[in-house]
Amino acid sequence: MSKKWVYLFREGDASMRDLLGGKGAGLAEMTKSGAPVPPGFTITTEACNAYYANGQQFPEGLWEQVLEALRDIEQQTGKKFGDPSNPLLVSVRSGAKFSMPGMMDTVLNLGLNEATREGLARLTDNPRFAADAYRRFVQLFGKIVLGVDGEKFEHVMDEYKGHGQRQDTDLSADELLEIAEKFKAIIKAEKGVDFPEDPFEQLREAIAAVFRSWNGRRARDYRRLNKIPDDLGTAVNVQTMVFGNMGNDSATGVAFSRNPSTGENKLYGEYLVNAQGEDVVAGIRTPKPISEMEREMPEVYRQFEQIARQLERHYKDVQDMEFTVERGKLYMLQTRTGKRTGAAAVKIAVDMVREGLIDKATAVQRVEPAQLDQLLHPTIKPEAKAKAQLLAKGLPASPGAAAGEVIFDPDEAEQRAQNGEKVILVRVETAPEDFHGMVAAQAVLTSRGGMTSHAAVVARGMGKPCVAGAGDIRINYAAEQFEVNGTVVKKGDYITLDGSTGEVFLGQLETQEPELSGDFQTLMSWADEFRTIGVRTNADTPHDARVAREFGAEGIGLCRTEHMFFEGDRIDAVREMIVAETVEERRAALAKIEPYQKEDFVGIFKAMDGLPVTIRTLDPPLHEFLPHADEEIRELAAKMGISFERLKAKVESLREANPMLGFRGCRLGIVYPEITEMQARAIFTAAKECREQGITVQPEVMIPLVNTVEELRRQAEVVRRVAEEVGFTDYLIGTMIELPRAALVADQIAEEAQFFSFGTNDLTQTTMGISRDDSARFVPKYVEEKIFKDDPFQVLDQEGVGQLVQIGTERGRKTRPDLKVGVCGEHGGEPSSVTFFAKVGLNYVSCSPFRVPIARLAAAQAALGEAKRDK
Amino acid sequence: MSKKWVYLFREGDASMRDLLGGKGAGLAEMTKSGAPVPPGFTITTEACNAYYANGQQFPEGLWEQVLEALRDIEQQTGKKFGDPSNPLLVSVRSGAKFSMPGMMDTVLNLGLNEATREGLARLTDNPRFAADAYRRFVQLFGKIVLGVDGEKFEHVMDEYKGHGQRQDTDLSADELLEIAEKFKAIIKAEKGVDFPEDPFEQLREAIAAVFRSWNGRRARDYRRLNKIPDDLGTAVNVQTMVFGNMGNDSATGVAFSRNPSTGENKLYGEYLVNAQGEDVVAGIRTPKPISEMEREMPEVYRQFEQIARQLERHYKDVQDMEFTVERGKLYMLQTRTGKRTGAAAVKIAVDMVREGLIDKATAVQRVEPAQLDQLLHPTIKPEAKAKAQLLAKGLPASPGAAAGEVIFDPDEAEQRAQNGEKVILVRVETAPEDFHGMVAAQAVLTSRGGMTSHAAVVARGMGKPCVAGAGDIRINYAAEQFEVNGTVVKKGDYITLDGSTGEVFLGQLETQEPELSGDFQTLMSWADEFRTIGVRTNADTPHDARVAREFGAEGIGLCRTEHMFFEGDRIDAVREMIVAETVEERRAALAKIEPYQKEDFVGIFKAMDGLPVTIRTLDPPLHEFLPHADEEIRELAAKMGISFERLKAKVESLREANPMLGFRGCRLGIVYPEITEMQARAIFTAAKECREQGITVQPEVMIPLVNTVEELRRQAEVVRRVAEEVGFTDYLIGTMIELPRAALVADQIAEEAQFFSFGTNDLTQTTMGISRDDSARFVPKYVEEKIFKDDPFQVLDQEGVGQLVQIGTERGRKTRPDLKVGVCGEHGGEPSSVTFFAKVGLNYVSCSPFRVPIARLAAAQAALGEAKRDK
Repeated sequence: MSKKWVYLFREGDASMRDLLGGKGAGLAEMTKSGAPVPPGFTITTEACNAYYANGQQFPEGLWEQVLEALRDIEQQTGKKFGDPSNPLLVSVRSGAKFSMPGMMDTVLNLGLNEATREGLARLTDNPRFAADAYRRFVQLFGKIVLGVDGEKFEHVMDEYKGHGQRQDTDLSADELLEIAEKFKAIIKAEKGVDFPEDPFEQLREAIAAVFRSWNGRRARDYRRLNKIPDDLGTAVNVQTMVFGNMGNDSATGVAFSRNPSTGENKLYGEYLVNAQGEDVVAGIRTPKPISEMEREMPEVYRQFEQIARQLERHYKDVQDMEFTVERGKLYMLQTRTGKRTGAAAVKIAVDMVREGLIDKATAVQRVEPAQLDQLLHPTIKPEAKAKAQLLAKGLPASPGAAAGEVIFDPDEAEQRAQNGEKVILVRVETAPEDFHGMVAAQAVLTSRGGMTSHAAVVARGMGKPCVAGAGDIRINYAAEQFEVNGTVVKKGDYITLDGSTGEVFLGQLETQEPELSGDFQTLMSWADEFRTIGVRTNADTPHDARVAREFGAEGIGLCRTEHMFFEGDRIDAVREMIVAETVEERRAALAKIEPYQKEDFVGIFKAMDGLPVTIRTLDPPLHEFLPHADEEIRELAAKMGISFERLKAKVESLREANPMLGFRGCRLGIVYPEITEMQARAIFTAAKECREQGITVQPEVMIPLVNTVEELRRQAEVVRRVAEEVGFTDYLIGTMIELPRAALVADQIAEEAQFFSFGTNDLTQTTMGISRDDSARFVPKYVEEKIFKDDPFQVLDQEGVGQLVQIGTERGRKTRPDLKVGVCGEHGGEPSSVTFFAKVGLNYVSCSPFRVPIARLAAAQAALGEAKRDK
Repeated sequence: MSKKWVYLFREGDASMRDLLGGKGAGLAEMTKSGAPVPPGFTITTEACNAYYANGQQFPEGLWEQVLEALRDIEQQTGKKFGDPSNPLLVSVRSGAKFSMPGMMDTVLNLGLNEATREGLARLTDNPRFAADAYRRFVQLFGKIVLGVDGEKFEHVMDEYKGHGQRQDTDLSADELLEIAEKFKAIIKAEKGVDFPEDPFEQLREAIAAVFRSWNGRRARDYRRLNKIPDDLGTAVNVQTMVFGNMGNDSATGVAFSRNPSTGENKLYGEYLVNAQGEDVVAGIRTPKPISEMEREMPEVYRQFEQIARQLERHYKDVQDMEFTVERGKLYMLQTRTGKRTGAAAVKIAVDMVREGLIDKATAVQRVEPAQLDQLLHPTIKPEAKAKAQLLAKGLPASPGAAAGEVIFDPDEAEQRAQNGEKVILVRVETAPEDFHGMVAAQAVLTSRGGMTSHAAVVARGMGKPCVAGAGDIRINYAAEQFEVNGTVVKKGDYITLDGSTGEVFLGQLETQEPELSGDFQTLMSWADEFRTIGVRTNADTPHDARVAREFGAEGIGLCRTEHMFFEGDRIDAVREMIVAETVEERRAALAKIEPYQKEDFVGIFKAMDGLPVTIRTLDPPLHEFLPHADEEIRELAAKMGISFERLKAKVESLREANPMLGFRGCRLGIVYPEITEMQARAIFTAAKECREQGITVQPEVMIPLVNTVEELRRQAEVVRRVAEEVGFTDYLIGTMIELPRAALVADQIAEEAQFFSFGTNDLTQTTMGISRDDSARFVPKYVEEKIFKDDPFQVLDQEGVGQLVQIGTERGRKTRPDLKVGVCGEHGGEPSSVTFFAKVGLNYVSCSPFRVPIARLAAAQAALGEAKRDK
């Protein structure tokens, strides 16, 4: 006896995905749950493999089993395959274990030929319907099964439609038959074969075509890129055709078991009477809301509603269903998990726990962490967006939407904002000296730079929308305008940014504010019950710290001290410090900065009372604090009372070929220990003062860009000495791990470091040799061509950079088993990266304030995933 | 019975370094070999450890053993410790296993007090000599043993000398005694103790001071930095004083057993009659050449000559000896391996093999590979150098010496060179567009950039002297002059560079050409007998390839194709290609470049007939091929027939924040596959043409800057397709491993790569996050402060970067056991790095042509070192 190659839908279930493919298993499960699914069967993935093993021939017994299954269907439907008097028509679809582009498309209406077409025409009393079904079938079969270039068919259609003067629907039955004949002639001419009139031959060929498509170029490429094994094989689904266009007692539609926008527990969808599935999609007729069906087809509606409930209970999740009503009889064609908005996801998850449908753990896993962004930021009203003119698309660098007047100059942005105007700061790229302009703006748009460019990082920190690296935009500062694909936008013109999608629109679109529901808080509290990894925030100001704390941050993982250097008059002292030529001059300038730094830290410590605060010593190259244009240098020189030449020479001498790899990080503190000294003193005097006021302070001093333990040791010596001088105890000294070398010698570094914090932004730059500021020139192309799965500055490159995170953690803990390890790169708020960090045993992630809830949820999901794996 | 803490010199030998320290073991060995060493003894390192274990008290039996040993010395010398009638005086010196700065200095003349001083005065009939010896002893003892600030003593001396009006030698015996008394008063005032008159107390305290110095701050720091264990301890050497200033039958001198400059097998050195060791050093009297001693003291000379031969035979190497003649009796005070020039090292090694003193393996290990540089390049005549004005010091970026007129503009340099003038090109830094100026110049001087800056790499490739990163030099292009520490050097002024030392001299110094002796060739051929790792060269032109082959290169490990892009008119086509806006335009421009590239490859293949040639596809960012100043852009735009605005926009759009981490390497070839295509076609048509002419061609196409196997796969597909089109077979496709990620996923990359070549320049930049162009700002300080042991661009950072080389090699070979692995960074010619590469199993190193002999020798030494370890 031969192997069982064919399963009727009623013989399978959802667990048989390997054998029946995803689609086949789903149809079987639906059938099993009692839903009215048009009868059909699935040819197994094993049959596909056997087909190849057999030299591309059907394995023994396959065809016989197909015929047998077909007879079963005939019995169920009362129709007969190839019988002109009551023809059974079927669809043939591929269906592998994983949905896979490049596999064979659907062939509909298989079983039609001259004779059965006429039978169908009689039966439906609709010759045009039958003729169109036939035309479609010949076309699909010719293209998909026989491999004729689809354009040749389209060309004929186009001629008949007078090159755009008429629609498909304007073609008469006769014309459609003529077209079908022409299609057959094309098939003959192209492939040298006659179009098969025999339905059985049609079926046989269609099945073989599905098998062959498994080894098509695109499918193979897809599998290689996505690491899907080649030996899975594909299943083939053969299913009875049903028609929603057989009169006013027929219909077709799609519906969700709950509202996918709001989460409301009510059927949501639309349908069309006397129509086919394509008609709903094509938009020629406007579908009606599903609620109308209750009046128009009360019986069918009740049945559908019941099935929807049943499927939802069965799958324990919102279902997105396709159905067809053929002459009053409801057929379910597909059901799948329904996509939903962030707000809906939260409401549905919490509701379903209350309804007893799922448990808390499941609820926590039901919401995509990234979706929470929608809940936390303003969005463009959908109706406004639909009508708007899209100017350009850049990177979704910081979520949220905002409208405002285009302003190019940071000073002007600040000024206008003070006058109450709403402005969008538009720059080629931003630098620290543009900070005040960013603070003043509603949102920031740059034409250059990636997800971790200065603009992106700063905007995310402030929770302000940002679209970065919109490469099509050509900015002309001199003319105070930008040009994009022919449109010129001048200073003062309104634009609207959607930082969640990267879209830039012309005009002032209406936005809506987010509302944080009680459901949101409930879900987050459940998430906290499960997660094992801590969530801190990257915050440089008391305000950011407070926001993050409200979002649930458990401390500050990264407080950048250099942002404080730009505020107000401090920059003058900073510049004095840089231009200083002796240690004494430098110390004098630093002494002016110290009180400001101290006050900043006091504010932050107060905001974080009881929680740890990690403060990084000065990191950026010094030239970032100086102007670069001659005009500005001249102005500053005059202000500082030094010669233009001297200042210019200083600026020149600080210029670097690759500032990212230059004189920055702890290298500054080692060459100028007095800088670290000043910062340490500011930290410890602030901490001491706060402690005296009853605030619980836990400072953690973090030394950046360390390569060797010796660097850390020298800086730690300075910090410890100052702490002793100030008389403050109970603090930690640690380091950023942001250079590959540091990860590789982490065992040595841990001799000195009490904690590690992986700076995955810089670690990605160095490990992969990609400057985040310059990545826009090729990374998008790499992602598009699947050379990279994701932009490595958005999603951690686990294989490369992640390997170093793992190595660094393991080696560090070998030396110091209780080493606290966190991550403070932008990846700390990216869900899949958070999962990775939890897996490799990090103690916490740290991210921008507005990403804290996302990280909390992702962390919970990571813990739940681990728990599942451990079972 | 207590442990043996004390060894007389005659009781030890050279093998007892652990116990007796380096100096003690040497003195013992010399004594054992029969040389007349002043008698003495060594207190063991174990005694030092026991001293600490015993709460800083002498362990049981130590003092008794010291006294016993002292009695032995008294017996040998006939003198008596503390006896005014014939006092025994000793020196006390520290001596750990490894020579270590920070350990205690020598105390001389110990045993002197009022009484013995008078005895010494009588005995020598020289009260001034005795008084000065006493004064020195009190000073040394006060400073070194008792820890009095040395300046306080100097201050007294200074007063007596009238603040520089008189010399030490002008002081009378009475004055010296007065001074000694003042020293004692200082000791009393500072330390509250009387100067010990008892010689035994002096000795006891001196020994304890040596022990204590083992744990002094500087010694501890040194051990930590050099990873020397703290528990080794130091030995103490106590030795009879001998005096060369006891009359005309006394003398002191230093001599080498062979000439350390030329290697000639003849005693070489100098001596002074009636003098002390310090007098030779102080230069007050002019010493006589050692050959004169044959006439003056024939007996002593013959004895010394014999001892020198004996020691040389014993140590099987050139000896650098110190001796003293006290009243006609010769004493050997020290012998150690003699330092020598490169030329001498080669001659001595080869001579000694011929003399049967050493074997070939030893000879090969006797020459420092780095010393060969002196043999391969012109040098400044020592007499000229001695009188010259040193202007500045930069990095020794490419060895050799050259003089010429200062020229700042590469075009002018070319023009003047064509007129037969010798010029030195002086630039802030060089770029590929300055190439023709570098070709024309005798040497290159830059004020910015490190050992692997463009100037350095290109100059080394051409074997031309280069001093890079001379930061004190301030260049003013506009004024056509540079200023350095107050000296202004104008265009046309002569300077002379020493690229082996990094020195820049004013004026035209005389240089001498190198001569490659037969001994050199002999030594190199012996080296080749031992080495296991191959040596290739980095060469971009047929000329370089030929030079390298003469130096013994076994193939080309790196042929950079971009240097060819700058020559002559090609740059025009290259620029056309860059400015092109469509694939077609780009292809048209590339078609113009292809014939040139092909001809270049033909030349290189011919020069390397029978040897493999690794060709790297285009690597640098495209903006390197375009001018950056408005003036030049305007000129070029006119020449290209496009608008200034368009070209300027192009230049702007290619500008990068961090070009090192930008759009370069295979990223170019992936975004513009037509570039790789053109290069592959040029390679394969050239290879085919050569093969048809009977040349044996082995091309290896190397794809740069690969991060993922997918990148390599895409580029390899292009290369393979072109090879097939051209009809060329038998070539390899491989990749540079120059990003940390590539090393980490080398197992995947080896699926596609037939060979790896580690680009350790870029790998160092990314692994350590240091831009080689910007490293000058802190790396010198790091090296000075021992945070880095070496400049990581000169000497491979084995711990970090080397770890990745090892990981990459291991993982690559896991996938492809026969994977060929080489290195083509500048480290390929650096001896200690070559040793490392050999150790981790690389197949070959590749370096600049002039470094090939160095690499051959280093490779042989690595193999011999391995063999020794394996024993």
